[in-house]
Amino acid sequence: MSDNENYVKEITNIDEDFAKWYTDIVRKAELADYTETKGCIAIRPYGYAIWENIQNYADKLFKQSGVQNAYFPVLIPESLLQKEKDHVEGFAPEVAWVTEAGGEKLDEKLCIRPTSETIITTMYSKWLSSWRDLPFVYNQWCSVLRWEKETRPFLRSREFLWQEGHTIHETEEEAKKRTLQMLEIYVKVAEEFLSIPVLTGIKTETEKFAGAEETYTIEAMTYDGKALQSGTSHYFGQNFTKPFDVKFQNREGKLEYAYQTSWGISTRLIGAIIMAHGDNRGLKLPPKVAPIQVEVIPIALHKDGVEESVSKIYERIKTKFRVEADFRKEVSPGAKFNECEMRGIPLRLEMGPRDIENNQCVLVRRDTFEKITVKLEDLEQTIEELLEEIQINMFNECKKRMNAKTTEAHNLEEFEHNINSNQGFIKAMWCGNKECEAKIKELTSAKSRCMPFVQEKIDTKCVCCGKEAEKLVIWGRQY
Amino acid sequence: MSDNENYVKEITNIDEDFAKWYTDIVRKAELADYTETKGCIAIRPYGYAIWENIQNYADKLFKQSGVQNAYFPVLIPESLLQKEKDHVEGFAPEVAWVTEAGGEKLDEKLCIRPTSETIITTMYSKWLSSWRDLPFVYNQWCSVLRWEKETRPFLRSREFLWQEGHTIHETEEEAKKRTLQMLEIYVKVAEEFLSIPVLTGIKTETEKFAGAEETYTIEAMTYDGKALQSGTSHYFGQNFTKPFDVKFQNREGKLEYAYQTSWGISTRLIGAIIMAHGDNRGLKLPPKVAPIQVEVIPIALHKDGVEESVSKIYERIKTKFRVEADFRKEVSPGAKFNECEMRGIPLRLEMGPRDIENNQCVLVRRDTFEKITVKLEDLEQTIEELLEEIQINMFNECKKRMNAKTTEAHNLEEFEHNINSNQGFIKAMWCGNKECEAKIKELTSAKSRCMPFVQEKIDTKCVCCGKEAEKLVIWGRQY
Repeated sequence: MSDNENYVKEITNIDEDFAKWYTDIVRKAELADYTETKGCIAIRPYGYAIWENIQNYADKLFKQSGVQNAYFPVLIPESLLQKEKDHVEGFAPEVAWVTEAGGEKLDEKLCIRPTSETIITTMYSKWLSSWRDLPFVYNQWCSVLRWEKETRPFLRSREFLWQEGHTIHETEEEAKKRTLQMLEIYVKVAEEFLSIPVLTGIKTETEKFAGAEETYTIEAMTYDGKALQSGTSHYFGQNFTKPFDVKFQNREGKLEYAYQTSWGISTRLIGAIIMAHGDNRGLKLPPKVAPIQVEVIPIALHKDGVEESVSKIYERIKTKFRVEADFRKEVSPGAKFNECEMRGIPLRLEMGPRDIENNQCVLVRRDTFEKITVKLEDLEQTIEELLEEIQINMFNECKKRMNAKTTEAHNLEEFEHNINSNQGFIKAMWCGNKECEAKIKELTSAKSRCMPFVQEKIDTKCVCCGKEAEKLVIWGRQY
Repeated sequence: MSDNENYVKEITNIDEDFAKWYTDIVRKAELADYTETKGCIAIRPYGYAIWENIQNYADKLFKQSGVQNAYFPVLIPESLLQKEKDHVEGFAPEVAWVTEAGGEKLDEKLCIRPTSETIITTMYSKWLSSWRDLPFVYNQWCSVLRWEKETRPFLRSREFLWQEGHTIHETEEEAKKRTLQMLEIYVKVAEEFLSIPVLTGIKTETEKFAGAEETYTIEAMTYDGKALQSGTSHYFGQNFTKPFDVKFQNREGKLEYAYQTSWGISTRLIGAIIMAHGDNRGLKLPPKVAPIQVEVIPIALHKDGVEESVSKIYERIKTKFRVEADFRKEVSPGAKFNECEMRGIPLRLEMGPRDIENNQCVLVRRDTFEKITVKLEDLEQTIEELLEEIQINMFNECKKRMNAKTTEAHNLEEFEHNINSNQGFIKAMWCGNKECEAKIKELTSAKSRCMPFVQEKIDTKCVCCGKEAEKLVIWGRQY
């Protein structure tokens, strides 16, 4: 049995047990690990480096659009959480409470933020007085806590890292524009940076954020055809600014409540990368987000001159790309290849005595396993082109799968048949009634993902009750 | 009364009530504000931008030295906190406890991390097996919580932002080297980036970190001659790796406990910047850390062509420096000057009709108030030189003060006289006895800051008991 087969045996087959395959990848690629704090993970350096790259990319886009970063307390007094009815109903059941501190029982319980609308809106009411102060376009990168019953690394962890943007505006129009502007940035992060095509649209009443007027979403599709909500942007209207008394003197000199938004993406995106791109060899990282873009592996390291020549190439290319070299003598090249594939590194560079003699090296693509022999003088140019190609090819592969796993249904039988025979997104018309939504979920375990921006009319009747249809909805089972 | 005098009247005089001056600056420069969560502040965008600049600078130095970022849970089970005796004694009295979550009482209390040695060392014991795995040189940027009784924005807040590095090594020597290497990086952050000269050395037994073998420190001096501990680096030996069972197979094939360090700097550095550099006009920011390096203020904005010409200059220089332009029509130039000084912006650029005619503008330094008329063709060059000069001048000014406020004492009378007549650092010999340290603190409110690396022998006798002296210690009152 080859090294390769041995190594791959350590990972569960992706088609046999996708959930177990997923946790195998998380742990064996050293992205994260379970901790003594139940339901909370430790993000290991390789996983965290992915998050840092996402942060840097997103933060730059945020700032270009006028976002300023800030930081608000991790603890929120119970009385603040209570102020907006829908919000407290949505979040109170899953918060963690601090009841003792500094050796004493507290007079008022403090919750660890599950999200920060309440504490931030309170501060906005202190800081806002005139329309001239507006807008506040603030964001914080932090961790939040939600006491989930079932957890899964990155996808649903009690504590997770995210950014939460909170803005207030002079007008409804400006706030709504910001809501959609942030959604567009999230599409860019997913599609251009992570090579993950996403579905975009507005959530139904049932699925929207607790306290929001409108929730917009980006939804990715996993290898096994499930939906993964990957970023949301909410328009609140004055739902929070009224109970929190955030008012300003408007241009007419009258007091008015401000219009609000919030929006977030989280380390769940790391889960999306794994689930959208991975295969039986392991993780597969798009070059833009990969902490290591090229892994340099010497062949026949014991032979004269190999270490020196390969080191030279490593030193040369690492000024231009994110590169790691693996000069371990106790590990065979085959084992290194496997490890490199497991860790999802987009390109590996092999170089042995024959290559050195011929002034060349071999590049192997993680996405297609294609081997390309390259003259050393063309090396940087070729790497650059290949990384770009891989980035695009990975997007196209996902897009192809998403298309193949998106079907239409015109009645419940068809809906059930489709979701069970080809799990994925189902396009179906809906009458707008919550009961139909609930019935579909009960029958098929599929929830409404969103009402897409592009509304085709694929039927005139609701897929569930047969009454007149109002909206095209995309449905799917979710992680 | 001029605009200027009016504005300055809003800040308490720095020589009358330094503590009140400090909180005035924090709030009026919009660095931070008090929140509904007692003892916790909200860091506003201008304050947070300072922190982001510090993070970027420090993180780059960390990574160059081989540090990798990671993330560990914010909640630590009580049983883990208990494992190292000195550590739990030091931290347990000031932690906050989560006792309820997800609607239920927890079986085991979880504390919000006051620092993460316990949870991180636990993970290290899972991940470590051979000397080949070592070192682990991990760091996390996060917030921690310590239930302080008296709080002050940035200096002593119940929640604060920091980085905590935690490393384990194969040998004592390598761990000790890392401890000092990180201290050197902190010196660089303070002196080169923040223009704050610092005293460096090792803490006495009494003052060292709970659970450490050795604690190294950088100590800044405030405007009023108090000491501000601004960063620490700890060598733990095997104090944690033994109770947490972090062992590895060494090169001889035997099991050995790893050698450990930890080190941290926090948003307290923002407090240090305010207290080391500020004056009666407000904040004074060193150019390297300043979120805005140049503030562009048009003069006679109502006159033809002013807005256009000044905009052009603004657009030109903002590609090279961090620049803000203030085109508000409802605010006078004088008020803008004051605001700009209050916010500590290193340079302001004034430009009016006469300047435009003469193809020039005026630069005003925040540190010296010097006005420099510059030909527009020399503008970028001049700004660059001035920013460098300001950076160095601010360091020199602080250094001068530190020297003037550092005195020697050979007996307790002299010690008391010095600290009361010229509050600052006191150099005095010490016998090594904890009781002398306690007595000095009781008499003078001054604590030992550190035993400096450069040990002069200024006397043969202990400043307190008169017995044979062991060490030169620097003492001071602290924030």
